[in-house]
Amino acid sequence: MSLAPWRSPLARALHNNRTLPYARYFQLATVDADGYPANRTVVFRGFLDKTNQLKIATDSRSQKTNQMKHQHWGEICWYFPKTREQFRLGGHLNLVTASNESQALREARQITWQELSDSARLQFAWPEPGVARVEDEAAFSPLPPDREQPLPNFCLLLLEPIQVDHLELQGNPQNRWLYRQQSSHQWLRQAVNP
Amino acid sequence: MSLAPWRSPLARALHNNRTLPYARYFQLATVDADGYPANRTVVFRGFLDKTNQLKIATDSRSQKTNQMKHQHWGEICWYFPKTREQFRLGGHLNLVTASNESQALREARQITWQELSDSARLQFAWPEPGVARVEDEAAFSPLPPDREQPLPNFCLLLLEPIQVDHLELQGNPQNRWLYRQQSSHQWLRQAVNP
Repeated sequence: MSLAPWRSPLARALHNNRTLPYARYFQLATVDADGYPANRTVVFRGFLDKTNQLKIATDSRSQKTNQMKHQHWGEICWYFPKTREQFRLGGHLNLVTASNESQALREARQITWQELSDSARLQFAWPEPGVARVEDEAAFSPLPPDREQPLPNFCLLLLEPIQVDHLELQGNPQNRWLYRQQSSHQWLRQAVNP
Repeated sequence: MSLAPWRSPLARALHNNRTLPYARYFQLATVDADGYPANRTVVFRGFLDKTNQLKIATDSRSQKTNQMKHQHWGEICWYFPKTREQFRLGGHLNLVTASNESQALREARQITWQELSDSARLQFAWPEPGVARVEDEAAFSPLPPDREQPLPNFCLLLLEPIQVDHLELQGNPQNRWLYRQQSSHQWLRQAVNP
């Protein structure tokens, strides 16, 4: 596979914003079972090897994993404050659990787990997110989980972009490009009005 | 009307992040006619007077105004980098155009137009966004529009939150609260697991 043409401007944005840790966060929008939008901040965990798929760490107990069962499409909105540019990446979502049929994806899930920080790994051993707060604070200081073997509720979430909208607010006038993947898997790039 | 209970922590976040201009940007997720999520960065323009509704400036020629006709619900994801906290605000969207039946809302639209910066106002006189780029660069240097009277394609977009999810990543452990508006218009606040 070859790098999609939007990978180069995205890599440049990541480089130029590298002093801001939160430039590696983006917002992921999904649609729930009732057709309502949901939107949350997640951390970019890099690209799946030899693909254009973005990696996200998620908890099978979170709402988004449930929402994805109904609509397997997500849209990332990624704003880079320093260079004042935005990437919107829409595409297929693929949730990788321990029982995934692909050995390569099961391994990718394990590697993503191993690459998490200690504190990020610890959160997967916390009580169920989103329900009434557990009173016992000790529940949030569990034993550190194994670094090698992911907890069962840890999932690797992949988003494979099919369309990318890149807007540069700097420059006069602004610049904007649409990238669309064709059925042939070729990418088309078009300059559009900002 | 009274201020919703989430207004106070949100005001505090705005204050504590006031040195970052982009702390006034958030991501708005909507759902299009085909049930796909869409997500983009927009600028917070304050609250509509005497309400808990968030103001956004938008162009009737943009995709989101069209998407809203199908699903009148949006979810804002607002991340504050300095204090490391997130607000997710889900609720009703209301698009206010020049022909809105409420005089108060027509006036609010006009005031929002007047409060825009010159460069923000100018963008509403640019060519249609999202279609093939106009070759003539002069199209992006139009005469400045009237400061008093909004261009017809200028819309005031209001989001009235019905549920708010506030997550504080700082602190050990993290804190998270859910606010939900009841049918009585009273707000319930619940501490939940992060």
